[in-house]
Amino acid sequence: MAELDLIRAIARALSPPGERVVRWVGDDAAVIKARPLCVTSIDTVAEGVHFHSATHSPREVGHKALAAALSDLAAMGADTGEAYVSLVLPRAHPHGDALALVEEMAALADRTGTTIAGGDVVSGPGVVVSVCVVGWADSEDELAGRDAAKEGDVVAVTGSLGASGAGLILIEGGSAQGELQEAHRRPQPRLAAGRALARAGVSSMIDLSDGLATDARHLALAGGVRLEIDLESIPVAAGVAEVATGAGLDARTLAVTAGEDYELLVTVPQERWDAATAAARTAGSTLSRLGEVVAGEGVAFREGDGSLREGLRGHEHR
Amino acid sequence: MAELDLIRAIARALSPPGERVVRWVGDDAAVIKARPLCVTSIDTVAEGVHFHSATHSPREVGHKALAAALSDLAAMGADTGEAYVSLVLPRAHPHGDALALVEEMAALADRTGTTIAGGDVVSGPGVVVSVCVVGWADSEDELAGRDAAKEGDVVAVTGSLGASGAGLILIEGGSAQGELQEAHRRPQPRLAAGRALARAGVSSMIDLSDGLATDARHLALAGGVRLEIDLESIPVAAGVAEVATGAGLDARTLAVTAGEDYELLVTVPQERWDAATAAARTAGSTLSRLGEVVAGEGVAFREGDGSLREGLRGHEHR
Repeated sequence: MAELDLIRAIARALSPPGERVVRWVGDDAAVIKARPLCVTSIDTVAEGVHFHSATHSPREVGHKALAAALSDLAAMGADTGEAYVSLVLPRAHPHGDALALVEEMAALADRTGTTIAGGDVVSGPGVVVSVCVVGWADSEDELAGRDAAKEGDVVAVTGSLGASGAGLILIEGGSAQGELQEAHRRPQPRLAAGRALARAGVSSMIDLSDGLATDARHLALAGGVRLEIDLESIPVAAGVAEVATGAGLDARTLAVTAGEDYELLVTVPQERWDAATAAARTAGSTLSRLGEVVAGEGVAFREGDGSLREGLRGHEHR
Repeated sequence: MAELDLIRAIARALSPPGERVVRWVGDDAAVIKARPLCVTSIDTVAEGVHFHSATHSPREVGHKALAAALSDLAAMGADTGEAYVSLVLPRAHPHGDALALVEEMAALADRTGTTIAGGDVVSGPGVVVSVCVVGWADSEDELAGRDAAKEGDVVAVTGSLGASGAGLILIEGGSAQGELQEAHRRPQPRLAAGRALARAGVSSMIDLSDGLATDARHLALAGGVRLEIDLESIPVAAGVAEVATGAGLDARTLAVTAGEDYELLVTVPQERWDAATAAARTAGSTLSRLGEVVAGEGVAFREGDGSLREGLRGHEHR
């Protein structure tokens, strides 16, 4: 199959665009009818770093690349819009694998109301997938940034943590099937929860890609505050404790450092707490209170005995 | 230097954003005040395919990656807006090289009124730069697509062709300095000409990245028409004939197949021809009449003796 045949096959794998799409795949650029605020992020996964062909199928790579990008829109509270996909493939790469990657990405796009509206397929030194996602909002009130955490705010997280990290341990140990493995391979961007929490008035929000320990530092740095988090409050996902024990790790430490859960970490003004928990519930999620925002800088984790632990880090910028 | 230090250094290299930028680098996503139509394209350059570290400096790679992406906005007639950059670097890659790449990209962004509003730096199997560019327009009348060439339209091209291809031959032959080499290394997106031509009512437009022979086929296919082009009408750039002769090539064949000139190929309704040539001139460019749009399909080049030559191809989808 020639490259152009692959590009045509990819175009056929995409769902037809909605009425907001004026021009798309096949033109020099897509043309989209805009809403007042355009929310954009680019995210890249590379072979040998973010995935390994021995343990991740092309379908899983496609899912993961789009999911990670959409998670940034979730963390802003934006509505999904379009995705633009750059696919770098080694010259000998099987076209069937590339098509499977795109098909799975298209399936996630459909489920999340995202139009894959453009892209690029080029040769390169390995499989690299960059996804630029564009989301939309009607006003700044609908969105949340990273930089407005305030002293006295509650620190909270959606869902539960550690499933992806435990899943990776199992996969690397040769156990391919199971819920934890699936959590690692097909992370779900928390789009509904993000939209609901932003509208409910959280003061800051970030998605947990690098792990809570690292991502909490980003919120603290951007807000000029300190986050104190009770380790005992961490909602550890079902099954993680057993995997952690088997690997000689502490379950809560694994849950806050392993990353790629793509849950949302938020800071919530006290008076918005009830609204925020209700919003998370309505979006089909949960909100667990982890600690509070105090004066200072950085992040500290409080152990069961009350002592503070600093310096925990997740996977930073692999 | 740690990765985070590189990211901070990159952020410092970027010019501060304009008032339309609500949030940018440092948040989960950028937030931009939209205009009615959002025009978006993603473009990728990879080491060993689109450039070689032996012949292209990091600065040239940065320039080329953004220039190629902006050229897609030129081909639509859109105003420049924002760029989102994904930078994939091998683990041992010198941070100084990465910073030089971004600095040169930032310089081109400044010159073209583009804000680099977000990005991503990750490890990977080689240097790969993906740039997603977002442009803006107020109405569809301001833009031109690929698909509306009509029988009887004039086929025309801006500027002159072959400089980039001749420059590459010289560079590969060990001659690093000169105007042709510079044309290859630092192509200029024809943004002003693209805007002016779209507003002047060209029926279709495409930028010449793969070479006129291939890109003309894209216009013909999208419009359901045939393009007949007089080879003797091709505006060959100064100095290209000498390089072609030295390499045993025909200058016009080189000019229509070598690609990466980033000039604009247009089809123009007869009654818009005067307006289009005036628009190109006002934008500091020229418009050369190459031939015409006829019924049928594909592209044919007319030789000096009147015979038609088909099957010429440029660099397709490297």
